[in-house]
Amino acid sequence: MSTISIIGTGNMASAIGKLAVTNGHTVEIIGRDQAKAAEVADSLGGSTTTAEFGAVQAGDIVIVALGYANVVPVVTQFGDALRGKVIVDVCNPVTPTADGLATPDGTSSARMVADAAPAGASVVKAFNTTFGAVLAKGQPVDVLIAGDDEHAKTRVAEFITSLNLRPLDTGGLNMAHYLEATGLVMIGLAQHGVGHFDFALEVTTPR
Amino acid sequence: MSTISIIGTGNMASAIGKLAVTNGHTVEIIGRDQAKAAEVADSLGGSTTTAEFGAVQAGDIVIVALGYANVVPVVTQFGDALRGKVIVDVCNPVTPTADGLATPDGTSSARMVADAAPAGASVVKAFNTTFGAVLAKGQPVDVLIAGDDEHAKTRVAEFITSLNLRPLDTGGLNMAHYLEATGLVMIGLAQHGVGHFDFALEVTTPR
Repeated sequence: MSTISIIGTGNMASAIGKLAVTNGHTVEIIGRDQAKAAEVADSLGGSTTTAEFGAVQAGDIVIVALGYANVVPVVTQFGDALRGKVIVDVCNPVTPTADGLATPDGTSSARMVADAAPAGASVVKAFNTTFGAVLAKGQPVDVLIAGDDEHAKTRVAEFITSLNLRPLDTGGLNMAHYLEATGLVMIGLAQHGVGHFDFALEVTTPR
Repeated sequence: MSTISIIGTGNMASAIGKLAVTNGHTVEIIGRDQAKAAEVADSLGGSTTTAEFGAVQAGDIVIVALGYANVVPVVTQFGDALRGKVIVDVCNPVTPTADGLATPDGTSSARMVADAAPAGASVVKAFNTTFGAVLAKGQPVDVLIAGDDEHAKTRVAEFITSLNLRPLDTGGLNMAHYLEATGLVMIGLAQHGVGHFDFALEVTTPR
């Protein structure tokens, strides 16, 4: 068990935080709005704490659970406070109409985080193909991940496994762009073929 | 039950053709190599036929089951012979090292097919997130689809349902790019997190 720092106070922050607390981790919630962060920390229970926005985090894994517009600005603001950390980017960078990616061609939210992060930090894409509402149910869903630093990816995979979820590696950080596209396909499914956001993408092996 | 035309003689052509024959459709196999097409038609059994490469097809649905390099050239060669058809593009346009998409930025194989197709033809992206080997097993996998023409998409969805598979709409033809990215994620999973190509992506609803 370890300490996990989560930057964000939305539904992904709450869902991952709750799973972490339930499975014995210590969680630190970090929000620009300290009152909101304290409220989320209270709702998670356990020994969940809050920390100053922009300061060095307690956890070796720092989950950035923010909307796309805030991810790079916040990572830039934290700057050297993220040195040595495993940064997990969970966001789906979609356009306002959710029918395209908002990232420039040839990059991804996770790659932009890697470019903005200080030396010694590693970035792993994870959790963007799992909806918060589904994670919140505690079902053993598949969590697709990507990253260039094998050590960091192994650390994140161990954390995911500790939540009773199944980590599945898709390759290097270049795959983050395609994972973000897969997140958009899930939103398309929710809007068209499925009709709700209460589903998971599962890797199944036929008989 | 209807007649389905399949351009191609590879494993996707065989897998979809076999499912179609098994479920009572008449299949027409069209290949540049007539001997190979006849061989595939024989292997499918039923009343499977072959047809001249480039001629008007018997089916109202024409499945283009070719590798990315051949898709647009073949659709261009068939030209007016595809007028009025529902063209199904199944390909995964990946780079030789399978860690990126081979399509130019801002488009997709399916969109390029639509641009190359004659007036009156409609293009639907389908089957690129289902591996041929898995389809060949006849499991009831999910088939993600995208297209702008609702009538054509409904027709393809009916065909998919008739194969005891589940069609799931992801939206308009702009989503084909993201479906192709999802196909690449599946290849990444096969190479990294799963270790084989014998798996399906399934949409599951948690309890």
